[in-house]
Amino acid sequence: MNDDSTAMIVASLRTHIAASTPGTRLPSTRALVAEHRSSPVTVQRALRVLAAEGVLESRPGVGTFVRSAPTAKAHDYGWQTTTLGARTSTPARLPGALTEAANDVISLHGGYPDGSLLPERLVRSALARAGRGPTALVRPPVAGLPGLQTWFAAELSAATAPGNSGPTAADVVIVPGSQAGLSSILRAVGGGGRAVAMESPTYWGAIAAARHAGVTVVPVRSSATGPDPADVDRVLAESGARVFYAQPTWANPTGAQWSPQRSQDILDVVRSHGAFLIEDDWAHDFGIDAPARPLAGTDDSGHVIYLRSLTKSVSPAVRVAAVIARGPVRGRILADHTGESMYVSGVLQSAAFDVVTAPAWSTHVRRTREHLRARRDLLAGALRSHAPEAAVDAIPSGGLSLWVRLPEGSDAGDVASRCQDLGVMVGAGDDWFPTEPSGPHLRLTYCGADPGRYEEGASILGEVLRDS
Amino acid sequence: MNDDSTAMIVASLRTHIAASTPGTRLPSTRALVAEHRSSPVTVQRALRVLAAEGVLESRPGVGTFVRSAPTAKAHDYGWQTTTLGARTSTPARLPGALTEAANDVISLHGGYPDGSLLPERLVRSALARAGRGPTALVRPPVAGLPGLQTWFAAELSAATAPGNSGPTAADVVIVPGSQAGLSSILRAVGGGGRAVAMESPTYWGAIAAARHAGVTVVPVRSSATGPDPADVDRVLAESGARVFYAQPTWANPTGAQWSPQRSQDILDVVRSHGAFLIEDDWAHDFGIDAPARPLAGTDDSGHVIYLRSLTKSVSPAVRVAAVIARGPVRGRILADHTGESMYVSGVLQSAAFDVVTAPAWSTHVRRTREHLRARRDLLAGALRSHAPEAAVDAIPSGGLSLWVRLPEGSDAGDVASRCQDLGVMVGAGDDWFPTEPSGPHLRLTYCGADPGRYEEGASILGEVLRDS
Repeated sequence: MNDDSTAMIVASLRTHIAASTPGTRLPSTRALVAEHRSSPVTVQRALRVLAAEGVLESRPGVGTFVRSAPTAKAHDYGWQTTTLGARTSTPARLPGALTEAANDVISLHGGYPDGSLLPERLVRSALARAGRGPTALVRPPVAGLPGLQTWFAAELSAATAPGNSGPTAADVVIVPGSQAGLSSILRAVGGGGRAVAMESPTYWGAIAAARHAGVTVVPVRSSATGPDPADVDRVLAESGARVFYAQPTWANPTGAQWSPQRSQDILDVVRSHGAFLIEDDWAHDFGIDAPARPLAGTDDSGHVIYLRSLTKSVSPAVRVAAVIARGPVRGRILADHTGESMYVSGVLQSAAFDVVTAPAWSTHVRRTREHLRARRDLLAGALRSHAPEAAVDAIPSGGLSLWVRLPEGSDAGDVASRCQDLGVMVGAGDDWFPTEPSGPHLRLTYCGADPGRYEEGASILGEVLRDS
Repeated sequence: MNDDSTAMIVASLRTHIAASTPGTRLPSTRALVAEHRSSPVTVQRALRVLAAEGVLESRPGVGTFVRSAPTAKAHDYGWQTTTLGARTSTPARLPGALTEAANDVISLHGGYPDGSLLPERLVRSALARAGRGPTALVRPPVAGLPGLQTWFAAELSAATAPGNSGPTAADVVIVPGSQAGLSSILRAVGGGGRAVAMESPTYWGAIAAARHAGVTVVPVRSSATGPDPADVDRVLAESGARVFYAQPTWANPTGAQWSPQRSQDILDVVRSHGAFLIEDDWAHDFGIDAPARPLAGTDDSGHVIYLRSLTKSVSPAVRVAAVIARGPVRGRILADHTGESMYVSGVLQSAAFDVVTAPAWSTHVRRTREHLRARRDLLAGALRSHAPEAAVDAIPSGGLSLWVRLPEGSDAGDVASRCQDLGVMVGAGDDWFPTEPSGPHLRLTYCGADPGRYEEGASILGEVLRDS
């Protein structure tokens, strides 16, 4: 691992590059390590030398390529600079969680379950049926197909506490995914530059939706048991926010689940401020040690706006979610949805309905629970054995990821980038904070990579952490 | 048609209502006319009497129903009044064009082609194939499936004038329909309360999208040949708007098509202001006397943002559109799309690609052209014969509707509502004006109702107009 071996690899790669056409993909770091009987660090160093010379181009998560020749004619779009003006808060780049992973990479960063965890047979037959049915050629009502509205309402009603009345189909708006649903909710209740309170850390997509909707995010510190009701009270009082966005059940990324008492206390605080609680029940189908218990089931006063997506548990192609809201706010959300995207494809709605009403659906959800349990425990065990520096303070009872605390003084982004150079994708915790991170963290998901490679991934992470 | 016959129908209906459970649908106006050997006007009068008493309930476009009993428990969501605050500009109701028509109604108001004009066989087989393919279970790239991006770019490139370079796949963003695309474009270029210039009249969905995006609409008067370039110049100069939204080819609702010279002059004006022209090529597949000729084909300086949807011509279920933009603005639009809805279902993108690349697609577009020609001419003829008071100043060479000028002093909303009472749905022109209408108009579409009933529809319209 000295400079000589770096130089030898550089020389060898130069020959390889000279013989290649622009755009050719280089062998993976692992292949080069094997070929040169060298360490990954040395190979990476050699690649960086050549990238700095401009003969190589690294596409994170995809690979390293021989650089293509510049295009023939350069357009001048410089006039747009003045017209567009300064960037507002719209995020300029995709967060790490959306980065595409190449095939030979160990993916511990993505938030979407691997195909093996999806109800493939159900999805394919539902799509086939939908393609033959009436919804393939007509425009559905803007609020959604009545059958699907009814199913979402009935699911939440089944979780409604005695003494509360459950929602009905008329309280449901079908939206094209939870991201779109959240955008519409935030514009409807937090529009006009108002503030929205959010757990910190929280789902990066919600932070992005808030910036996108032009609302100011006011962070509320959260922990393994959820936010402190007194903190929520103080933040709502001081900021004037009338909306609190939260994930009470297996929060992304911390895995926190609010206790029934905590839920009641927070709901009382929200009510006392005449505010809304947006409950993003994103992990509804990913209960491991117990099924999800929506907080919305304890409210019929219109204070909880409930968001429930099928995209992660049914299929990323079935981009369908429901917003359940009661009172005038539901009309505002529907009006926003109509202005934004008019309606959701009836084919996707039919297919979603078909999947979740199939007898095999509940079997699938139970089977997934067992798979997720095994994966979660395997990843946690691999970290304990091979990366003890990465602390998992609480094993979540549901959801798709572990929230890992790194040693004081580590730089999460740097750790993630060095892991990536070595073929392991991890999520740098900073993406999940709407404000300065409370410390260096990683989010490691157990729903993506082949579990057979968790040990290898944990070893590489451990190596990187010890090398810091 | 005197008060006695009204009273007799009222009495008869009372007996009928007393014997019915709440929610029962009454026979249609046409059936009641036949039953009582009376005129539609008398039947309507009787129904209004009973509706005023609260025993009947009219659901526009659906029918008249025996009123349901009030629900058992009334929720109090009154606290939301204070929290939500005053309504901003979000439209409170759906425009007439989205009203559902009952089966026995003559629908001359909807903007979506009837199923008989859609490529049903192609759509069904494309959806079936997509359900079997890889996109049924994976998340596509946020900007869209590369194949579909390439197709959209190639289609516009084929219409690109010599001397200009056409767009490439990298200039394309796939969005979930043109409404969502327009929302993203307006937020990207007109955000922060800036002004957007729009033709007046113009597509009501664009007006809704502008209000929804929080941008101020500045109207530019348009005529049968499009807007006057001098007007565009003045409006851009005076309002500071840096965006002009227009439909240069078969504008909805006027049917106006800009001449090549007019297009060039307007594009020059837009360029001189360092502005963007949003070209909504909504009727691309609905050329009747000639194919569409996108204005974007004459620009490679990044001034034209091109919007092209497949929803109307392929199927309302295939909710897929493309935004083609060059320069930094494309990045802004993609960032907005990502924040809003993340990505478009891969199944819908695959199906769209499959339909438009099938050899039968161009045959279908040609066949549709012939159908639309016949329908357009039939409706125009029926109006000339049976409703000469409704003036069609120009027969459009493409698109889906006729723009009808009513006699001075008519109230378009009143005419539309009286036609609806008599079983004919027409679009009141006022919905298409971002400002005070220039006069009373109707938009009559020839893509919905059975053409065999155009004469009947025109007769009823004529009767209503003469009865004004």
